[in-house]
Amino acid sequence: MATLEWVGDGLRLLDQTRLPEAETYVTCRSAQEVARAIADMVVRGAPAIGAAAAYGVALAARQGALAEGAALIRSARPTARDLFWAVARTEGSDDPLEEAHRIATESVQACRELSRHGAALLPKGARVVTICNTGALATVDYGTALGVIREAHEAGREPFVWVMETRPRAQGARLTTWELRRLGIPHRLLVDSAMGLLLQRGEAGLAISGADRVCANGDVVNKVGTYPLALLCREHGLPFYAAAPLSTFDSNAASGSEVDIEERPAAEVTTFAPAGTPVWNPAFDVTPARLVTALISEKGVSEGAAA
Amino acid sequence: MATLEWVGDGLRLLDQTRLPEAETYVTCRSAQEVARAIADMVVRGAPAIGAAAAYGVALAARQGALAEGAALIRSARPTARDLFWAVARTEGSDDPLEEAHRIATESVQACRELSRHGAALLPKGARVVTICNTGALATVDYGTALGVIREAHEAGREPFVWVMETRPRAQGARLTTWELRRLGIPHRLLVDSAMGLLLQRGEAGLAISGADRVCANGDVVNKVGTYPLALLCREHGLPFYAAAPLSTFDSNAASGSEVDIEERPAAEVTTFAPAGTPVWNPAFDVTPARLVTALISEKGVSEGAAA
Repeated sequence: MATLEWVGDGLRLLDQTRLPEAETYVTCRSAQEVARAIADMVVRGAPAIGAAAAYGVALAARQGALAEGAALIRSARPTARDLFWAVARTEGSDDPLEEAHRIATESVQACRELSRHGAALLPKGARVVTICNTGALATVDYGTALGVIREAHEAGREPFVWVMETRPRAQGARLTTWELRRLGIPHRLLVDSAMGLLLQRGEAGLAISGADRVCANGDVVNKVGTYPLALLCREHGLPFYAAAPLSTFDSNAASGSEVDIEERPAAEVTTFAPAGTPVWNPAFDVTPARLVTALISEKGVSEGAAA
Repeated sequence: MATLEWVGDGLRLLDQTRLPEAETYVTCRSAQEVARAIADMVVRGAPAIGAAAAYGVALAARQGALAEGAALIRSARPTARDLFWAVARTEGSDDPLEEAHRIATESVQACRELSRHGAALLPKGARVVTICNTGALATVDYGTALGVIREAHEAGREPFVWVMETRPRAQGARLTTWELRRLGIPHRLLVDSAMGLLLQRGEAGLAISGADRVCANGDVVNKVGTYPLALLCREHGLPFYAAAPLSTFDSNAASGSEVDIEERPAAEVTTFAPAGTPVWNPAFDVTPARLVTALISEKGVSEGAAA
């Protein structure tokens, strides 16, 4: 399985909207198709969005419409910093395709390195809470928060994972359980709201999330529900870590309040509700730096304000 | 619409597992059928469970198997105090059916009174968060937390309601939105995890939940997710209220740690997950008394430890 792969004339994506039921692929052969795939979450996860965006710019260059294609991709989703970073890098390059390849290669390398740094934070037999999907599917390969857990597993540290469902799109229930089963890492799924009782009962020792944007002050913008999780960790004296490559760090965003939090369609939330029910569907929230024990990147572990 | 109603030879229940798609009724003519309806959540909500249990004991008495029927009903669900209270009251009565009628009548009266007491806590134009369903469907009529909101609405105080979806069974999305629409009370649905961002943005002024059991020390056992909500309220300086009739107060449970928290089937949680995914599915959690601003009952408003 490859989350995303250049296939000569286009970008082949594993269609994550159809997992876990079906393992199917779509190939994007224009910047328009890449922008649509990002907006529809065929590809998702900040690092994977970044690499897909880079290839989208390469396709725009081939179409002879670099600026228009780049603008379209920038408008696909507003929150993940990797998207804007990758578009800027490829758009300013002499050879956008070559630059996209470099971004993809570096991204895997960054994930491997941050995973090694992060795994050192997990005691043997750690019971780890995680939210959303931050594994190979969310990156070019390996993962961020789930990469840390995978590294600990492969080093024989025997982590156990509590997987938050992650409504509304259920990336935890659909994607993280699917990855953990393939990796042979023991886990258990629970609804997002059960996190309070879990920590009350002392059933977890720490939490790790990924990030969509890490602000200059250390605020972590990530999947909606990350902030309540971090608050519960503080209440129960547990560490809360966020793992992300440097491409997710945005020195231009002073704090989380400056970041555009995407609001997605009501239909994602009305799964169980009467048709026409009014909905508010923000995709992300802001975990204040003071709740973050440490940030994990390919440069190492930097203690956060909560350490 | 009547949540539950005695129809001469049995107890007619509005089937809440089929709402909002279909408004259908089932009639239970034995204690066995009532126990099954409670376990399967055809009828749910602590006060409604209590009244249904009382009628179940009346049916057991008609069957000439009072003790067996009462035992079966007591085993239907473990957490809501009203069930055990109502079974004890009817089982010890000379005329169980008459006693069940009294319980149902008193329950409506208690809901009306606690709603009046609670409505006084809502400022004009209050933006109120609520979890699960605590309206007419959760009681014999009128409701507890939703009764408070309804009373404020009918008094012209113009409350607005943020409805938490309430995974896994989505009582907020399925039942509370359905009731609020019928009552003409403006509202908006959001996933449980979005509560953090909502309060970060200052979009709510207070939260009210119901309760399944209020302990002697003021701990509130309620739908899973209530504790994280109350913790967020404290973090953002907002009041958190719990509304319940005295039948939910259990002086024999010293604190929440003594209460049996029901764990329900995995199938409720695997909605989006690969088949066979291991699951933990607790139906309730414990909100410590220190996070409860006030308890609202038919006796009035008693300040909690957080006041």
